[in-house]
This record gives sequence, structure tokens and C-alpha cells, in this order.
Amino acid sequence: MLRSAAQLRGIEAPDVWVPDNEDATAPSMRDEGVRNIISIVSEHGKDFPGEIHPRVVWHRDSPSTRYQSFQRMLEIADPENGAVEHIDGFVIPEVGAIDDWKKADEFITIVENEHGLKEGSLTMSVIVESGEAELALGELRDEMGKPANDLERMFLLVDGEVDYTKDMRAMTPTGELPSWPELRHNTSRGASANGLIAIDGPYDDIRDVEGYHERMTDNQAKGMLGIWSLTPGQVEEANKSPLPPKSGSWRLDVNDRNVELEEEDGRYVYDGKDIGLEELGDDRYGLRVGGDERELDGDELEEELLNLADYIPSMTDIVDSMEEFEAAKEAGRGAIAMEQSGTLVVDGVEVTIGKDRMWDEATYQAAQTPITLFQDVYENRPDQHEDLEEMYGEDIVERAMVVG
Amino acid sequence: MLRSAAQLRGIEAPDVWVPDNEDATAPSMRDEGVRNIISIVSEHGKDFPGEIHPRVVWHRDSPSTRYQSFQRMLEIADPENGAVEHIDGFVIPEVGAIDDWKKADEFITIVENEHGLKEGSLTMSVIVESGEAELALGELRDEMGKPANDLERMFLLVDGEVDYTKDMRAMTPTGELPSWPELRHNTSRGASANGLIAIDGPYDDIRDVEGYHERMTDNQAKGMLGIWSLTPGQVEEANKSPLPPKSGSWRLDVNDRNVELEEEDGRYVYDGKDIGLEELGDDRYGLRVGGDERELDGDELEEELLNLADYIPSMTDIVDSMEEFEAAKEAGRGAIAMEQSGTLVVDGVEVTIGKDRMWDEATYQAAQTPITLFQDVYENRPDQHEDLEEMYGEDIVERAMVVG
Amino acid sequence: MLRSAAQLRGIEAPDVWVPDNEDATAPSMRDEGVRNIISIVSEHGKDFPGEIHPRVVWHRDSPSTRYQSFQRMLEIADPENGAVEHIDGFVIPEVGAIDDWKKADEFITIVENEHGLKEGSLTMSVIVESGEAELALGELRDEMGKPANDLERMFLLVDGEVDYTKDMRAMTPTGELPSWPELRHNTSRGASANGLIAIDGPYDDIRDVEGYHERMTDNQAKGMLGIWSLTPGQVEEANKSPLPPKSGSWRLDVNDRNVELEEEDGRYVYDGKDIGLEELGDDRYGLRVGGDERELDGDELEEELLNLADYIPSMTDIVDSMEEFEAAKEAGRGAIAMEQSGTLVVDGVEVTIGKDRMWDEATYQAAQTPITLFQDVYENRPDQHEDLEEMYGEDIVERAMVVG
Repeated sequence: MLRSAAQLRGIEAPDVWVPDNEDATAPSMRDEGVRNIISIVSEHGKDFPGEIHPRVVWHRDSPSTRYQSFQRMLEIADPENGAVEHIDGFVIPEVGAIDDWKKADEFITIVENEHGLKEGSLTMSVIVESGEAELALGELRDEMGKPANDLERMFLLVDGEVDYTKDMRAMTPTGELPSWPELRHNTSRGASANGLIAIDGPYDDIRDVEGYHERMTDNQAKGMLGIWSLTPGQVEEANKSPLPPKSGSWRLDVNDRNVELEEEDGRYVYDGKDIGLEELGDDRYGLRVGGDERELDGDELEEELLNLADYIPSMTDIVDSMEEFEAAKEAGRGAIAMEQSGTLVVDGVEVTIGKDRMWDEATYQAAQTPITLFQDVYENRPDQHEDLEEMYGEDIVERAMVVG
Repeated sequence: MLRSAAQLRGIEAPDVWVPDNEDATAPSMRDEGVRNIISIVSEHGKDFPGEIHPRVVWHRDSPSTRYQSFQRMLEIADPENGAVEHIDGFVIPEVGAIDDWKKADEFITIVENEHGLKEGSLTMSVIVESGEAELALGELRDEMGKPANDLERMFLLVDGEVDYTKDMRAMTPTGELPSWPELRHNTSRGASANGLIAIDGPYDDIRDVEGYHERMTDNQAKGMLGIWSLTPGQVEEANKSPLPPKSGSWRLDVNDRNVELEEEDGRYVYDGKDIGLEELGDDRYGLRVGGDERELDGDELEEELLNLADYIPSMTDIVDSMEEFEAAKEAGRGAIAMEQSGTLVVDGVEVTIGKDRMWDEATYQAAQTPITLFQDVYENRPDQHEDLEEMYGEDIVERAMVVG
Repeated sequence: MLRSAAQLRGIEAPDVWVPDNEDATAPSMRDEGVRNIISIVSEHGKDFPGEIHPRVVWHRDSPSTRYQSFQRMLEIADPENGAVEHIDGFVIPEVGAIDDWKKADEFITIVENEHGLKEGSLTMSVIVESGEAELALGELRDEMGKPANDLERMFLLVDGEVDYTKDMRAMTPTGELPSWPELRHNTSRGASANGLIAIDGPYDDIRDVEGYHERMTDNQAKGMLGIWSLTPGQVEEANKSPLPPKSGSWRLDVNDRNVELEEEDGRYVYDGKDIGLEELGDDRYGLRVGGDERELDGDELEEELLNLADYIPSMTDIVDSMEEFEAAKEAGRGAIAMEQSGTLVVDGVEVTIGKDRMWDEATYQAAQTPITLFQDVYENRPDQHEDLEEMYGEDIVERAMVVG
């Protein structure tokens, strides 16, 4: 598995590859596992397109586990083994309070010193899977930068929901994991306050692609931009998920569920049964939403559908809007109205609706997040250029790289 | 715009007016903007019924912006300019960690000292629009009262969701802002722990009055009592929203949505289609809720509707209950039962339901929050007396002012 | 009421009994109340099956209330009064910031010292009912263990939503309490980080058993394992709620609501109207979910129902799975697949579905939470052995006691 992971490329290769020496390796096999990591990384590391951050064992409550962690990091980072030149940092699971983070940090400092590596050259990522560690997210900013530690080496903050659930002694009737919105918020906030990157833990149900997408959308709304992937299929989904779609689309909010409309010849067709629409003639319409029926004139109908409809902008839409706002700003205007319009079809009746949105500097900067992410990926992952150009077309990729 | 804002009165005038020298003013116009603020406030400030807190620029990451902030506060607060006698404090946006709040506090201290104003006479409000600032909400209590700062001058804690979304690098498919429940909770808790007032940021979609109301109701359930208003129309909605309604009403919880019932001759009529009710004779009834139909006798029907129904008490109801509880307490009783009953009509069938609620000291005190707010507004805003008396009637206003 | 509470046994007796000298006692009766507690506890305490933790008055803002608290604890804990040998600790309401917790802790230390009790022998539980106290939950870990306090005596962290709502100045249209998910998360996290137990506050609507259950299920998913009970009926529900059911069952997720299916002869029958199923012959089926109808073949139908269905494992299921995993681990295997299958019946059409779930060490340990809780209860509450054996059968109780 290490060997095949090392050879992933393009949209199938992750930005960060974590060769695992913790849960994915049986305890009795971990010394051999370390040798496997060294062997595969020294052979393939040079050509791997993303960063490489092995995960070693750790536990806030077990000094012997922490000592094993130290010994294995020493071995993996030994320049004589040929792997460390391709290794960017280590992932430390099961951390506790901030003082526990400092212990791992100190071991990495000693590892760097012993092997003549530059202090701080190896990053440290942690897996937040205890209440203690969650609290540490709020203290990190006050500790980073103190002369007695090297916590500036911090890189990823990863949530680990299975062990967190155990640590919190949480239970659900079906055994499913709770969704832990507060943990994910606090992890994302910790990343924001410390210039780090927040990553969600593994999504266990590998076959549930739709569920994986929903989780990523929920994470992105919290500022948690990445997610653990267990398979090359999940990697590809995770790589694509935060990027804007190729084409814009409309969706309707029906009974608190979002139904995406299918495009047919530039019109967006709703074919569910929860909304019904009938032309009564003489600019009168019968609209049924859920159980409620109302008679409306054309303007009221448009207003009503506007309330139910949302537009999901495409990459092109976002780049267009940003370019338009940049031009307006250059011309001395601080705010402009952007219009989105579309023709929806419900029960064969066509209704054209349009939404104005005021863009000012703050809107512009908030809209920029997916573009900045795109630019970041594009710059750091030449192996994905072909995939991205195939997804979006060369023209829009070029424009997306210069806007902002 | 400054001039017309300064002349708002009554229910159209905000409790706190924030003449803006940040985002609403183009960067190149901000020196002129300061002169406009000074000129308008010195002319109209004396007669403005609320407090006046200009917003100046600030940024946790930009020393030059902070220096501009200092210079502009110095100018606005110069007694020779005639505005400061009407100014209650400053609003500082884009603050970072607590040490950044202290920098702004220190500038205000120097401003006060230079101009011979009493130390602490100018309040400071901050806009929480970064993960760092959100964390500072939890530290404020430990810092306030330290001799090296004047953070006791703190007044409002305002959320700024547009910039916060950017700072958290959050994204949604439609570009809508996430609702950030945890941020709003933490802001409200920060206000509670420090004797301050929590205020939600602007609600962008000015035409969406219903959405604005829903947001305020959600905020109030979090203890966030105020909200930014962008237009006189929003000011009026924001002034009225936290006050109890003139008349009580019943609502039904149908498929997790609350449907308010219309009053007709003292009965409350449901006219949606998600609930159906049929009289089968012989004290038997057919009740359909969502997709489920059941046959019930009269008592079971009442029980079932009681589960679905909630009563929204009016100002009069609350004052009545409080007076009743106060009398009971005087008579040595610690808890009394309050009854709310009403006649609901579904598909023409009338059902009278009644709910008992036990009131003890804690219920009494929790119910008091809207009344205390009403009293606070009434005392501080004589210009709203007429509007409030028109809304509620003189009698209930008088009783509401003495209860509690 | 004290006398009858003291005589509860078995599933009707709580794990922790809190004889109340605060809100349940009129202020003028509290000295007499203390004598009542002493008299009842010295008479019945020896035979009471759970722990006994009287609640005394306290208020972060009132030195006179705190002094009363001290005097009453001194009296209750006086060995000459005969009660303290049965008392495990005190419950302190209305605490503020962590320094306020230390004041209560210090009084208990003095009480212990004055009465020759071992330092730390009386535990301290607090009621979190202010924003300040919520913030203290995050600081407790850094304060516990400092030589100048005895905060290691901490036991329960209890939320008090009525007073918390007042302290946060929160309001809802109906006067219902907000559900405060963030407070409950932070309390649970505080318990996890400090080895304590998180308890939810009282559920006021005593007759609403279903609501009480939903609240407990929600709490358990947050790691908040206990809840305040106001009546023997609530005690029984609260004792049973966190335990796995006697029999497993299937439920369907219909329009975001979970509908539990009724078992009939080993098949699980859906009899609502929100899902419809029709056999069209030739391995074709018509499935209606909410408003949407689709035609599917047998495999697609199974897939679709699998997405809607969840299995709620029984005590036996959990013990079976744990034993199976333990055997696999012994045999050197780190992960095994557990299958759950069942036959669902919708509109008379039978469909058999099966779900695989991969179990590894982490799944195993997370699944263990309810079993560990069961073992803990069984060991500490011999008076419940009969009730538990009646609920589950002797065989499974025995197996549950040795697994894990």
C-alpha cells in the first residue's frame, strides 16, 4: 500500500501523504513498518508530487509510547537512511494538553539536532482526538513563539473523531459518530489564529461518496479546508471538492432540503413533486410548496421563487465577478451590483428570475477564498495542471491564475 | 447619509449610532470623512437620542492602519472641534488577540489624556472578525481590571461575519455567509462574562425583512440582543424585534417548521395542508400530521395538539404573570402554576387546549429579560415613548415600567 | 420529600442523590432545611444505594450567600450530627469564574479540617449557570493540581439552563429555554479533560417523557452521560436511557426524522405514509420517498433502503461484536467486518438488507463506552442487579460484565 500510494499522481495524489506507522500498522509490526516507510520514501519520495509526513505513535498518557515515537522519528529522519530529504514533517496522534504538544516538539528538535538538520525544518502536525487537545487549540497562540519551544513548526491540525468520541465518552444509538460541529469549529479557529491548516478526520464509509461530499461541504463552511482520505477515490473527491464547479447551477430549497436543478438547454428544470406550478392564465399562477398552495401573479411568483432559489456560481462566474470588481475599483468605484439570472422550469412552466448582489471590498475578498486555494494548488502541484485544464479549460485556468 | 442618520428619531433611531470612517468610506476620502463626522456630530449630536460611537480604521496586521486610527481618534476627540462632547466612544474593527485590543485601548487613553478628558470616559467597542479576536473573548475577563490597561472602557462586542468568513477561509457553494453559531455563542458569552452587550453584524440582504427577523430571533436565543442595521427600515425592525408582541398568539410545530396561527374572533385558525382534522362523531377524531393519520378521542386529540402547539405570550401576558408571581411571593408562596389556554381551529374543527407552566423564582427571573430590556429602552429613549405607547397602549407600558 | 427520596432503591434510585437546600427550599426555611437534611441522612444514609451530595446556596456575586453556604456546610459536615459519614460531597450552584470555584473549595477544605475529616474526602460539584462559569470549564485543567487549592476534589459538572439563560440574557418567543448546544459541549469537554462527569440540568416538563428521552439521547452524543431528575419516574428513565436496548431494531430516516420500525415475527414493519413501495413484477419496484417516486430493480432498491435504514444494536449485539473482535485480535487480526442484516416490510413488500461495518481497535474502543458504563453501574449498584437481570436476562448480563 505504501508503494502504490507513493506512485499516485495528478488529481489522484494528495497534497499531503501520511505513511502510517500508527493504527494502520499492527503494534508488533511497527519496527518493520518504519523500515518500509524509509525504503519506500527513499525510493519514491523524490518524485512524489505532494508533501510527505509520516505518522508515528504517540499517547498523552503513555511515556513508553512517546519514547517509541522518539526512537522511530530518530530512525526515519536519519540522513543515512536516505528518506529524510523527502520528508516534510511528522504527524503526532493522541496529543493531550499544550504541554504534551511541547514534548513532541522537543523530540523533533532533538531529532533535528542529532542529525544535523536545520532546527524547525521538520514540521509537526497533530491529531486532535481528546478534550484536552481541543482546549489546547485555544492556547496554542500564546505558546507559539516562546523561546523554550519550536512550536512555529506546526503545520496541520487534524481532527480524529473516532478516538475523540471515545475520549468524550459519547454514545449514539446506532454507533455512528456524532458530527462534532463544535470540535470542527474550534479546530478551524485554531488554524485561523495560528496560520495553520485545519483537516477533518477520515470518513469511514468509503462507498458513500455523497456523504463524503456533504461532509466536505459542511467542513468548508467552517473553514476546515482539507479532509483525510483513505483511498485514491477519496483523494480525488477531496482534491476536487473545494474547487468551484465548471458550470454554474440553480438549486431550490424545498422543505429545508437543497435540490439541485438539472440544466436543459440553458434552463433549469425541477422535476420533484414537492413543488407544483400551474399557469392559470391572465398572469395568474398556482404555486404549491410542500403542502401549501397559493395563487400569485407573475411578479409575486418571481419573488417567491427567488426566495426558494440559490445560484451556485461556476469558476468562470467567480473569475468574471472578480475581474469586474477589480476594474470598477481601478475606476474609483467601491461597490458594484452583480446580477445572476436564470430560467427555471417547474411543471413545464418557465419563470425567469434574477438576483442582484452588492459587491464591496469585503465581498470581493471573501469570494476570493476558493480562487486563492485554486492558485495555491496550481502553483504547488504541476502534476495536476493537465487535470485542472481538462476540468475547466485552459482559458479560465489562465484567468483564474492572474485574478486577485 | 451622516446628516440624515443624525436626524433620525423615535423608533427609527438606533440606540447606538456608528458614523463610519472605515468600509463605508473610500480609503482616499477618510481624512475628509473625519471632518464630516466632526461637522455633523457637533451640529446634530446634542439632539441625537441615542449614543454616538464613530468607527475608525484598525487592523491587527497593519501598524500604519493603526497609526491612522490613532490620528483620527485624536482629531475627532479634540474638544476644539466641538464633537467629542456628544461622542460616547469608538468602534474598533479588525482587532486581533487581546494584546491588540490593548493597543487600541492605550491609544484611547492617550487621546483622553491629551485632550483633558476623563480617563475611561470614551468607551471602546470592537468588531470580532477573526479567529484571534474570537479567542480573545475568552481572555477578556482575566485582562480587564489589570492596572496597566483601561479595558473597563469596553462597551459592545460586535460580530463581523463577512471578514470573519474570510479570515476563517470558509467557503459555501452559493457564496452565502455561514451562520457561525459558535462565534455568536462565544460573543454572547463574552458579553455575559464581562458585563458588555453582544451585537450581531450586518444582515446584507436589505429587502429580506423576514430573514432579518429570523436572524434576530436566533440571536436573541443566544443572548445576542442587538444587531447592526444598515437602513432606517432595519433600525425600526431591530428596535422592535426583542420586544414582546402586542398580542399573544399560538403556533403549531409542523414538520419541524413553526406555523403561526391567524387569530379570528379569539380563535386561532390553521389553514395549511400539513395538518388535517376531521370530526368522526361520538367523541372520535381523525388527525393527520404530515403523512401520518390517527384516530383519537377528544382527550387524546387535545394532548396531541398540545404537543404541537406553543403559545407566544404578549407583553400583557408577561406583565400579568410577573405581577401574579410577585403577589404570590409576597404571600409567601415560592411557586405558582400559570395557565395558557386557547381555542385552535383546524379544518373547521374547534379544539380548546390549555397548558400549565410552573413558575418559580428562576422562571420569573428568566421571563424578566424582555421586560428589563423594555424598561432600559424606555428610560433611555424618551423619544420612543410615543411609539411604544402607540404600540402597546399607555396602561400596559405603565405597568411594564413598575413590574420586576 | 427528603424522606421518600432516601428510601428509593434499584432502578428508581439515582446514582447521586442531591438533597436540596437551595431553590427547592424557601429562603426563610433553609436553616430548618439543613436540620432536615442532617436528620434524614443520618437516619437513612447508610442504606441509600447511591452517593449523597447535598446542594447548599452559593452566589458568585453575593458574599453573604457564600458565608451562609460555609456555615451550612460546617453544620452538615459536623460528625456530631451523624450525617457526614454518609455524605460524599457538596453541590455548589451559581459559581462564577475559576477563582470563585476556589473560594468554595477553600471553605470545604476548612470544613474538613475543622471536623477532622481527611483533606479532599468531600467532593465538590458545581452548577454551571453563567457565562463566567462556562469559561472556567476551559481553565480548570490548568488550575487543578496547583498546591494552593484542592480542586482535585471536583466530581460533577452540572449545567443549569434556567439560570444560564437568565445570565446570558437570552430570550425566546415562547419562553422555552434555548437548547444551548455549545454550553453542553463545553461542559462535556471539561469533564473529559479533567476526569469528571458531565450532567445536564433539569428537564422541566415532567410529563413529557418522550422529550426527556430525546434530550438524553442528544446529551449522550455529546458525552454528557447524566441528567438531573426531578421525580422517581424521571430517575428511572435516566437510569435506563444510556443503556443499550434489550432488542436491536431498525429505523428509517424519513424526511430527516428517524422512524423506528415495529418488529413483527423477526421482520421490521414501516407503517407510515411518507414511504411507499410497490412490486411491479419482473424484479422492478416503485419506491416513493417523500414526494419523489422512482422505479428501481431489486439491487437498487436494497441500496436505496440501506441508505435510509440504520440498525440500533442491542446489548447482546454489542457484546457479541466485542467478543468476536477480541477473539480476532487474539488470533492476530487487527480488523474484522461485522454484518447487520434484517428484513424490512414496506406496504407489504419484504426487502432484506445487510450492512457491513469494519471494526478495528478504535471502533472497538468507541463501542465499549455503553458497556463500560453498564459495568460501572453494575459494580456500584448491587441494588439494581435484579432490575438489570430482569431487563436483559442473566446470561447477557454475565457476558457483559467480562467483555472488554
